[in-house]
Amino acid sequence: MRAVTYVAPREVAVVDRPAPEISSADEALIEIRVSGICGSDLHIYHGDIPVDAGTTIGHEYVAVVIEVGDGVRELAPGDRVVGGFQTACGVCWLCRRGQFHKCDRSRTFGHGKTLGSLDGTQAERAVVPYADVTLRRVPDEIDDEVALFAGDALSTGYHAVAGLVPGETVVVLGLGPVGLCAVQCALVSGAAQVIAIDSVEERLELAKRFGAVAVHLSEESPRDEVKRLTDGRGAERVVEAVGSPQALDSAIRLAAKRAVVKVVGVHAAPAEVHLGIAWIKSLEIQPGHANVLGHIDHVLRLLAAGRLDPGPIVTHRMRLEEAPAAYAVYDAREALKVVLQT
Amino acid sequence: MRAVTYVAPREVAVVDRPAPEISSADEALIEIRVSGICGSDLHIYHGDIPVDAGTTIGHEYVAVVIEVGDGVRELAPGDRVVGGFQTACGVCWLCRRGQFHKCDRSRTFGHGKTLGSLDGTQAERAVVPYADVTLRRVPDEIDDEVALFAGDALSTGYHAVAGLVPGETVVVLGLGPVGLCAVQCALVSGAAQVIAIDSVEERLELAKRFGAVAVHLSEESPRDEVKRLTDGRGAERVVEAVGSPQALDSAIRLAAKRAVVKVVGVHAAPAEVHLGIAWIKSLEIQPGHANVLGHIDHVLRLLAAGRLDPGPIVTHRMRLEEAPAAYAVYDAREALKVVLQT
Amino acid sequence: MRAVTYVAPREVAVVDRPAPEISSADEALIEIRVSGICGSDLHIYHGDIPVDAGTTIGHEYVAVVIEVGDGVRELAPGDRVVGGFQTACGVCWLCRRGQFHKCDRSRTFGHGKTLGSLDGTQAERAVVPYADVTLRRVPDEIDDEVALFAGDALSTGYHAVAGLVPGETVVVLGLGPVGLCAVQCALVSGAAQVIAIDSVEERLELAKRFGAVAVHLSEESPRDEVKRLTDGRGAERVVEAVGSPQALDSAIRLAAKRAVVKVVGVHAAPAEVHLGIAWIKSLEIQPGHANVLGHIDHVLRLLAAGRLDPGPIVTHRMRLEEAPAAYAVYDAREALKVVLQT
Amino acid sequence: MRAVTYVAPREVAVVDRPAPEISSADEALIEIRVSGICGSDLHIYHGDIPVDAGTTIGHEYVAVVIEVGDGVRELAPGDRVVGGFQTACGVCWLCRRGQFHKCDRSRTFGHGKTLGSLDGTQAERAVVPYADVTLRRVPDEIDDEVALFAGDALSTGYHAVAGLVPGETVVVLGLGPVGLCAVQCALVSGAAQVIAIDSVEERLELAKRFGAVAVHLSEESPRDEVKRLTDGRGAERVVEAVGSPQALDSAIRLAAKRAVVKVVGVHAAPAEVHLGIAWIKSLEIQPGHANVLGHIDHVLRLLAAGRLDPGPIVTHRMRLEEAPAAYAVYDAREALKVVLQT
Repeated sequence: MRAVTYVAPREVAVVDRPAPEISSADEALIEIRVSGICGSDLHIYHGDIPVDAGTTIGHEYVAVVIEVGDGVRELAPGDRVVGGFQTACGVCWLCRRGQFHKCDRSRTFGHGKTLGSLDGTQAERAVVPYADVTLRRVPDEIDDEVALFAGDALSTGYHAVAGLVPGETVVVLGLGPVGLCAVQCALVSGAAQVIAIDSVEERLELAKRFGAVAVHLSEESPRDEVKRLTDGRGAERVVEAVGSPQALDSAIRLAAKRAVVKVVGVHAAPAEVHLGIAWIKSLEIQPGHANVLGHIDHVLRLLAAGRLDPGPIVTHRMRLEEAPAAYAVYDAREALKVVLQT
Repeated sequence: MRAVTYVAPREVAVVDRPAPEISSADEALIEIRVSGICGSDLHIYHGDIPVDAGTTIGHEYVAVVIEVGDGVRELAPGDRVVGGFQTACGVCWLCRRGQFHKCDRSRTFGHGKTLGSLDGTQAERAVVPYADVTLRRVPDEIDDEVALFAGDALSTGYHAVAGLVPGETVVVLGLGPVGLCAVQCALVSGAAQVIAIDSVEERLELAKRFGAVAVHLSEESPRDEVKRLTDGRGAERVVEAVGSPQALDSAIRLAAKRAVVKVVGVHAAPAEVHLGIAWIKSLEIQPGHANVLGHIDHVLRLLAAGRLDPGPIVTHRMRLEEAPAAYAVYDAREALKVVLQT
Repeated sequence: MRAVTYVAPREVAVVDRPAPEISSADEALIEIRVSGICGSDLHIYHGDIPVDAGTTIGHEYVAVVIEVGDGVRELAPGDRVVGGFQTACGVCWLCRRGQFHKCDRSRTFGHGKTLGSLDGTQAERAVVPYADVTLRRVPDEIDDEVALFAGDALSTGYHAVAGLVPGETVVVLGLGPVGLCAVQCALVSGAAQVIAIDSVEERLELAKRFGAVAVHLSEESPRDEVKRLTDGRGAERVVEAVGSPQALDSAIRLAAKRAVVKVVGVHAAPAEVHLGIAWIKSLEIQPGHANVLGHIDHVLRLLAAGRLDPGPIVTHRMRLEEAPAAYAVYDAREALKVVLQT
Repeated sequence: MRAVTYVAPREVAVVDRPAPEISSADEALIEIRVSGICGSDLHIYHGDIPVDAGTTIGHEYVAVVIEVGDGVRELAPGDRVVGGFQTACGVCWLCRRGQFHKCDRSRTFGHGKTLGSLDGTQAERAVVPYADVTLRRVPDEIDDEVALFAGDALSTGYHAVAGLVPGETVVVLGLGPVGLCAVQCALVSGAAQVIAIDSVEERLELAKRFGAVAVHLSEESPRDEVKRLTDGRGAERVVEAVGSPQALDSAIRLAAKRAVVKVVGVHAAPAEVHLGIAWIKSLEIQPGHANVLGHIDHVLRLLAAGRLDPGPIVTHRMRLEEAPAAYAVYDAREALKVVLQT
């Protein structure tokens, strides 16, 4: 089968690989219909997340089940499915508490040895461990490229606003696919208003189209705008979807007293945090990636009902064979979301 | 001043009454702009809730503050306000826990001696005890007759779906103003779908216009429809907005395992409940009227943002002087919501 | 192997049965060390829950793992384990939400065809489906007969008070093993006081020994006592551990405004509920059996730490061979908890 | 009346001041029976929190009500009361949500102009604004010096563990009065075990006496001990009761995946936080001082029931006149808690 593999920094290749096979009762073999390129893929592409040359990459996918192991109970061959970017066993301490993203046995597709040596999904086929927990059937109403978002960015957006009380104000900092999905999720969950902040015009336009008040990061004053729109209180929830110390600092400053600051942007290093402000405001700061498998069922229902629609975030549709060009386009920041069709 | 008073079963009168005055530091004197007629008013009108002849009735109102007591801190003369149908002291055991609807000192406007001997709001003026807790300023964006809903039916609808997880299915049983408001609140709060059940065509039409799937109580099979729309699971939340044993029984039957059944319809007597079904499904049954003052701030924000709009529920606009005719129209079930303009 | 089987109403026998074997990758074969006799066993014993003659009964057990299927990841032969009285698959809609007690594939040990045709645990050996979710290793600090409670009554007691806010008052109605366990769990969870109500002196004594205020159901006035001990407010939580309409009615009357009424006593039929009182108090009524597998981990930790100790509830220790006598003793209400040693 | 006033860094004096009087309907005039010296007082004593010379200091107190304003409804002259270290109005946006510690009108006793110019309670008398919200009657069962803790350290300990799930492991970093109170609150709230960390032997001894596992900060390895006691998982909740970047860093490292890190130690400045670890563990970090007035009712009930008892934390009892010596003793770290008797 054909698969996209990492070669060297800023170089990927589409190569022939042996078709994978099921080796455990809990697994499913799937045929990929579409896969996505995501910000995390770019970290690999840049060599920042080291993977061996030859590793099949990619972790977003919509597929059809070809075969299931004996222990799989929720799925059958022929099912169209979407799955999480990481697997979860369903039975460890944290899985038993529904915290699938912190599963002790979790493996992430296409991220090399450090995250479980699990072949990626930018390929014709893949094997999915713990298929009952990792995969979900896609309702017929949802198109492949829309369903694709449920396995990563859209469930992350849902996660970023989970627990929101209808009527609150939400600020979203950073309007990449995750931030834009957070805008949609915040509105569908009852935010009275969403204030979306970025410095890229197209992204601000899209956020506005989704229902947000768009604020340019540098040409306007986010601080003044948030104050104006919240009677000086700040936002009850701030979604930091950038992953920089500056963005986190802004998040803390734009937050109201007792607000939730949800940090879904990736932080891997120590950072200086203005703890004094966070302390005096009594914020709840919640860093970490999303519990995608904890939210994906509800996200799929909202997609099926047409209440969420991340479709407009897709800017490029290319063939799996065109992966090298697709990565280059994405790396050049010309694309918001690239969908690879197998 | 002019005031609507109870005379005898099915008879109200508009009479002259002395203008009320503030007598305590926590009170506000208000001038009523609009008041509503509500299902509870009908219980008084029918003589089912006994009040003395001559009692000023009515408990829904939008008004302007004329004067405030020394202890009032959140309001000033000139403020346009809406208030709860019942007052709350803000300092008793349950108020300190935000359970304003169960305030130990609560009094309900226009409900006679048993509920605190507080003059009603279908009048030119009224005095509001504990004004800081009972009243809220109305944002400029909201019209009087829309704001009116925040003090009763709309905050009740919000209460009925509070805690809903975005993506759930909600069934609303009974499409009077409260049920219709619950439909709107469920959708704004993230319900993937709302199934609205009643037997009056106009109400079903309105629910559909608000975004619900409308199901006729007797011409269709609510049970079959709910099953069909939920993969046989039932609804994660059922709002019983009727107040009859039959409706409660239906609610329990339409509920999914582990669902919440919110009983905002009024129950005053013992009723046979199929506890066996509730037990085997492990339902959470939550009867009781709404914590209006706990939700009204967020409801007003959603109204100001245009995300909620109960305006279409208003079918009749009449003058305060026309109250006798208004009550007759409402009693004849020709009206969904009557607004009285002062 | 030897197994306790149902023969006819009020007749059980200990017979030879073929040793069971694993037939699926998710199963474990266990050797029972102790099993318990529970109130539900009595329903079978009385013929009220119909099972075929020859059915192996029993659903409480502490055991040692002999063999596990290929798909079992959390357990290994030699592990001492306790398990839930019902199995859970871990992957269905409700299991994925941690609601293991409402699992779509759940089977209850020793309850015949209607509950999944799963052989009981009053036997030398048993096969446990979905072993990773259904079984837990027992920490060394916990004795067999104490651990036994974690699989049923003690996790039910924990369930009955889950969500309690430290400082609240809890009433427990009915002091069988479940009620007594609820007393312990309420105190360990921070109840300021627990008021335990029954009419059997020994049970009241035990509740008192566990730290409760004991109130005799008929010789004292539960209503007056609860009022006196709560400044007239009622209890913030009432655990109905009887399963009768009268007990539920009392529960509703002893509850404070906005209280939680947890109905863990079994209700299988319709019952008249004073909904008017429940409505005016805005109670949360939560009927249904416990989510044992959702709570068992924390219960085991509290047992290991010695913070919970249901040991004193065990009144009789008998051999598996003595099951007929054990059932007779239990049926005569001479025992609180009978432990059968294999 | 006599009052303790700030003179200059490390110098306080007991001077004559005019007796205060009520000037608003919501106020109460109280006669102080005991007051405490707290870590925050030391910040003032050191000149780190600047207050004008002559400011009456102190913010912990148990008192008797002498007079109440017309608007006070919950209190009467003669009531023995304890109150929060800060006032809350009960009617602003956050008070209406029960977030009394972030009240828009809050004033802190004895902290000078920046915190509302409210005279302190290390004096014979004080005036308490918003008395209905700020003060609570003390049940007869509770001694003055025990009740004193409810207004500050003990309600802070309760706050630090609010939301704990019974069976969890709690680490408490820093065993001053707040940390020691957190130990007690964690155990009363159902912690399976509490691991208490400090470097002062007496404090470790006291924590052990309260039921904790005591770990010396430098002579033992907190990291190894926490690992050993939690099967390598870390603690589900870490209370940082020190207020230093190092303590916060430790808190993050000792926390389990998905743990709550409650930062009640005071942070006023930016600090470097190892966000990468917090992110990968998906922690919830909750900095800020406690919602004392939100928890005090339940704390008082637990004190009245004898389930909490901070009495052993009191090391020194002195007369109000001895305040200069008392401050010197406290500053020399010879005392854990000093109670001043009026």
